[in-house]
Amino acid sequence: MIQKSMAISPEGKLRFGGADVEALARKYGTPLYILDEGRLVENMRAFVRGAEAAFGRDTLVTYASKAMCFKALYPILEREGLGADVVSGGELYTARQAGFPMNRVHFHGTYKEDWEIDMALQAGVHSLIADGEYDLENIARRGRVAGILAPVMLRITPGIDPHTFAAVNTGMECQFGRPLETGQAMEFVKTALKQPGVRVLGLHCHIGSQIFEEGPFALAAEKMLNFCRQILDETGWSPEYLALGGGFGVRYRESDPECSVEHMLRGLGETVRRLCREKGVPQPKIILEPGRSIVADAGMTLYTAGAVKQIAGGRNYVIVNGGMTDNPRYALYKAPYTVYNASRMTGEDLETYTVAGRCCESGALIQENVRLPRVQGGDFIAVACTGAYNYAMASNYNRVPRLPVVLVKDGADRLAVRRETLEDLLKCDI
Amino acid sequence: MIQKSMAISPEGKLRFGGADVEALARKYGTPLYILDEGRLVENMRAFVRGAEAAFGRDTLVTYASKAMCFKALYPILEREGLGADVVSGGELYTARQAGFPMNRVHFHGTYKEDWEIDMALQAGVHSLIADGEYDLENIARRGRVAGILAPVMLRITPGIDPHTFAAVNTGMECQFGRPLETGQAMEFVKTALKQPGVRVLGLHCHIGSQIFEEGPFALAAEKMLNFCRQILDETGWSPEYLALGGGFGVRYRESDPECSVEHMLRGLGETVRRLCREKGVPQPKIILEPGRSIVADAGMTLYTAGAVKQIAGGRNYVIVNGGMTDNPRYALYKAPYTVYNASRMTGEDLETYTVAGRCCESGALIQENVRLPRVQGGDFIAVACTGAYNYAMASNYNRVPRLPVVLVKDGADRLAVRRETLEDLLKCDI
Repeated sequence: MIQKSMAISPEGKLRFGGADVEALARKYGTPLYILDEGRLVENMRAFVRGAEAAFGRDTLVTYASKAMCFKALYPILEREGLGADVVSGGELYTARQAGFPMNRVHFHGTYKEDWEIDMALQAGVHSLIADGEYDLENIARRGRVAGILAPVMLRITPGIDPHTFAAVNTGMECQFGRPLETGQAMEFVKTALKQPGVRVLGLHCHIGSQIFEEGPFALAAEKMLNFCRQILDETGWSPEYLALGGGFGVRYRESDPECSVEHMLRGLGETVRRLCREKGVPQPKIILEPGRSIVADAGMTLYTAGAVKQIAGGRNYVIVNGGMTDNPRYALYKAPYTVYNASRMTGEDLETYTVAGRCCESGALIQENVRLPRVQGGDFIAVACTGAYNYAMASNYNRVPRLPVVLVKDGADRLAVRRETLEDLLKCDI
Repeated sequence: MIQKSMAISPEGKLRFGGADVEALARKYGTPLYILDEGRLVENMRAFVRGAEAAFGRDTLVTYASKAMCFKALYPILEREGLGADVVSGGELYTARQAGFPMNRVHFHGTYKEDWEIDMALQAGVHSLIADGEYDLENIARRGRVAGILAPVMLRITPGIDPHTFAAVNTGMECQFGRPLETGQAMEFVKTALKQPGVRVLGLHCHIGSQIFEEGPFALAAEKMLNFCRQILDETGWSPEYLALGGGFGVRYRESDPECSVEHMLRGLGETVRRLCREKGVPQPKIILEPGRSIVADAGMTLYTAGAVKQIAGGRNYVIVNGGMTDNPRYALYKAPYTVYNASRMTGEDLETYTVAGRCCESGALIQENVRLPRVQGGDFIAVACTGAYNYAMASNYNRVPRLPVVLVKDGADRLAVRRETLEDLLKCDI
């Protein structure tokens, strides 16, 4: 099965994180997000151990909160020695309410409202990642108002397509950071080093997502360390920190490659050390920012099947009681997921189904052409590896309440996020 | 300008619904949804008058709540004589809390939870639209439990591609209703007519969206009335109601055609009367279900511009303080929108911009390649015709609070939905 936390009971039912999935469905209702805390912790440890082995003990692994952000996650991150990236006042507020140590928090984002910058400065975050000159000036200005020397890192766009492993000569055009290739990154660094009110701690880059090999990260490290050499030559400054971003691959389907974090990081560590030596650059403290690779394969979404509709001579549809409201990723990206009939894992009467959500929108599918033991109304349908960007991107489209999140650990379960009520849906209506 | 409610002040600032857009931005903050009640009412009246002229006084125009659902909308719908479609308990609850007359409500959906069916039956909705045999049986079963004879309409898939105007011989495969072409629709009708516990009021179809011409609706009416004739022959039953769905086109860009609702409906009325006469079918009461065409061009989203980033030799980006969280339609469908620099409507120093939201996701754009008078940080950016499927589909991705909705009418403004707070974001976190 696609998730390490899965098992099949003697009765042919799905188990997850040691818990009986049908029992969870009955206890908490469906649709339901389930998150295996055991797997979460394994993923965190793989990164922390891998990063320390690769880059030394002063490395920092910061969890990218945007993948999935809720209060009960932060004590686990803290215990396992991770930091956290946040991209908004809302994420920062969540981490703070959870009592997360603010000196392990990085505040990102292309647009930071003044109140968000103030909140980050007052909280004492480790650093704010300045996205460009405009953002930098705002951070410095708010720092002056607060009387706080603002710790910043500078977001650089190294111009790498992670899926061709190639440096893209035109620069990868995107809205984030300042591009290396055009010389604008260097201007940005020089501006920042002269900017009163900020203390420049380091450089930051992020090259993409679903990267299964060391190559693109090594290329990014090489471009960034070349840049460090160039900065050293032109300004005499060296970054204390170099953030290489996230984007570590997650296996959503059996056909996806396995991604060994420890192996990738070991290779990357050797590359970084060699490049620093060759280029005569002081080795910066390396920051890694995994998000998806921490939570995705720890999560599962559980639905109840309603109508099973056969179009004569055509498709079979299974309608489930959730959909693009709790998982918009098929509608957005045709994202692949592995689907199971949690009620009948071992049935041999396989059929091909399109799993459609309850939303009134024809594109509101969860997955097409999945092979499942024959589904009947009332069966529980499990969609695997939904920990990342599902709860995070959920909406109330069709005024459907958002789902609860249940944490399971060695068979025990606890509610981490409760289900929305009808009253919640109307809470802002005047 | 693309919206009839827009005007330009002598100072070159955008006005909307008689209100100064910058003043609204300062009063309520940005990002902000603004909805012109005057235009809303005009759109509602165009449908109600057009439908009555075309089909007679016992026609019913029901607003498709999924396009935009909030409490303060329902008194306006009620006053203008519309009904409402709802697709969930959440939408039904909203209409009820607003005191909307339940006998003008249709309850749709491919998956109806038992509690939702119960709620609809107890509320005394006009009808539940049964999506197929499974749904029908559930409705009947819940009706028996409640001792209520359940009023239903039956959802039929007529197999029409509204954008080629063609009947699709294989049937348009989708998860909704039962297909005409395969004979499954007739089986469904016969099952429903024999189903104890339900009273079959009519038939329902919906062929698609963004339809600018009468043709596809006329084709749907023809297929449905042929079907009515066939049903009459085989069972002796005639539907009291025939719902022809929604999908009336909305102009998002200057290059989109104008869609005259009155003209389309007049033509459709003639077609329906002629077909009924020719086929010897009693003319059913016609139901129309506009959603987008009621709210889209009454709405606008207002953002504040942050950084304006020029990639040397490449694009210009304007980063705004909202994005795919309040308008996911560009990320989902590359949906076109018309964008204005609300602070400098008449500037002649036009530049080409990509408008990017604040979300940490490269696809989180609002629109690409728009021509605007030169934008500076702090300018207000207006995105036009965002009344439909923006507020409705909004998320808290990146834990960004959702926007307020302000109603304007002849220059006066009132808050209809308040902005979410940070506390709201955490309300379900344990």
